[in-house]
Amino acid sequence: MTLEVIEVGPRDGLQNEPVPVPTDAKIAYLEALVAAGVRRIEAVSFVHPGRVPQMADAERVMARAPRVPGLRYAGLVLNERGLDRALETGVDEVNVVVVATETFSLRNQGMPVERAVETFGAVAARARAAGLGVTLTVGAAFGCPFEGEVDPGQVAELVARCPEAQEVALADTIGVGTPADVRRLTAAVREVTAAPLRFHFHNTRSTGYANAVAALEAGAAALDASAGGIGGCPFAPEATGNIATEDLVYLLERMGVRTGIALPAVAGAGLAIGRSLGKEVPAQLGRVAAWPP
Amino acid sequence: MTLEVIEVGPRDGLQNEPVPVPTDAKIAYLEALVAAGVRRIEAVSFVHPGRVPQMADAERVMARAPRVPGLRYAGLVLNERGLDRALETGVDEVNVVVVATETFSLRNQGMPVERAVETFGAVAARARAAGLGVTLTVGAAFGCPFEGEVDPGQVAELVARCPEAQEVALADTIGVGTPADVRRLTAAVREVTAAPLRFHFHNTRSTGYANAVAALEAGAAALDASAGGIGGCPFAPEATGNIATEDLVYLLERMGVRTGIALPAVAGAGLAIGRSLGKEVPAQLGRVAAWPP
Repeated sequence: MTLEVIEVGPRDGLQNEPVPVPTDAKIAYLEALVAAGVRRIEAVSFVHPGRVPQMADAERVMARAPRVPGLRYAGLVLNERGLDRALETGVDEVNVVVVATETFSLRNQGMPVERAVETFGAVAARARAAGLGVTLTVGAAFGCPFEGEVDPGQVAELVARCPEAQEVALADTIGVGTPADVRRLTAAVREVTAAPLRFHFHNTRSTGYANAVAALEAGAAALDASAGGIGGCPFAPEATGNIATEDLVYLLERMGVRTGIALPAVAGAGLAIGRSLGKEVPAQLGRVAAWPP
Repeated sequence: MTLEVIEVGPRDGLQNEPVPVPTDAKIAYLEALVAAGVRRIEAVSFVHPGRVPQMADAERVMARAPRVPGLRYAGLVLNERGLDRALETGVDEVNVVVVATETFSLRNQGMPVERAVETFGAVAARARAAGLGVTLTVGAAFGCPFEGEVDPGQVAELVARCPEAQEVALADTIGVGTPADVRRLTAAVREVTAAPLRFHFHNTRSTGYANAVAALEAGAAALDASAGGIGGCPFAPEATGNIATEDLVYLLERMGVRTGIALPAVAGAGLAIGRSLGKEVPAQLGRVAAWPP
């Protein structure tokens, strides 16, 4: 059994960190990840640099990102302007976010859900025409910080309106989901799409790894994780990191699921980015001895 | 559906903390836990005070521990001398540890496994004659820091040799297990005992909560947890805390499993013991807003 682990530390991990990370350190992070065997990386976000200063060097990062056969880079895109930048920088795929609730959609990307769905269609068509892979990520799919509970049927309905997606990612943006939610949401979304399912978990309430196992067993094709488990912001104590790549790889490999990622190497990448950020990362595998000894 | 959550913070959580916690703070911790609805607490350990100084006030703690109807206190016991103390202090049950491997048994309780099994039999007989509940905890049931992998058959064989146990607890003492291990071990142990199964997880490698869900779904009757997720020692970076009661209660309740424990109250108990220890606790529920909002 195999599962694709998609590294999102360079994008979702770093974008929430208040300490500016120099381009050199980002390249070192990417190099360490690739050396560890990671073959799909969400490396940058093409959003307005005024909104996410940490991602302002997206073009410079992509120009210097290491390349090996079979390695694919994704960029996050919220609108056509972002797509223009993505097309120029040579990413292999775009990850386009549509948020499940109106309030969060307005705050996250400044447009109502209806227009985000239209934008997704336009971006996806252009990206596919240019030969890029297209992922639809449904943000706040497990709950919204403003509107509260999100019905799985509402998420499924949104997915159904985005048939151009080659992959559907369900994001627990604020880390409230449990395995029961993963199963319910998977069942609802499976009714409207045959696209490979990908999940994006944050460990805000300690449910992230349990959710990862539930997703695996519900048939997920891919899981997002960030080496180091980085993310979160000291000014917003509730924004915590993605599940950590090294901890996820330990869990999966020990359950007999192959990821292609070397544990000590990816744990080293997590520790190194922690040094760049000047903090101890949430990932635990970098702090413990190899198992079995 | 219900699951019994057994609070082990006052014993397993505190015993590994290097900061001495005054008896008053321990009583406040117990009072907060009881007020939150916890009804089974492993409150003390009857081991030599020279070995575990944090537990030296076991008699004073039990003399002042709050009592409400339906509340049971357990004490950890490793030998007959410990049982003598337990019988005098008025705990309701004893938790007797037998370690799965020779090396760890010698280091943990100074006797080979064979003698630990004999000791268990003698302690259990006397405790049951005195009307106390008897739990067998198999330490290092998921792996041994000295001998490495532990075969589930070896654990089952050990459990079979302790038929006096009214409850069998399987402890992942060093936090290496995964859901696949939980399922294998449960199947092996179920072949030799009909006693209720209880699990004890440490979150050392981020697998603790996934293991909790696996144990629940494999038919566990009870799970250990510590409010605050306390435990571990700054001088031994690999010794980390139990899964946190508040995070476990969030996970279980949101999956539709009733625990009888009030979330904000138990999260408050975790934050309070963190203040006594002068550190930020690993539990996450004390740091986030209520969900749903």
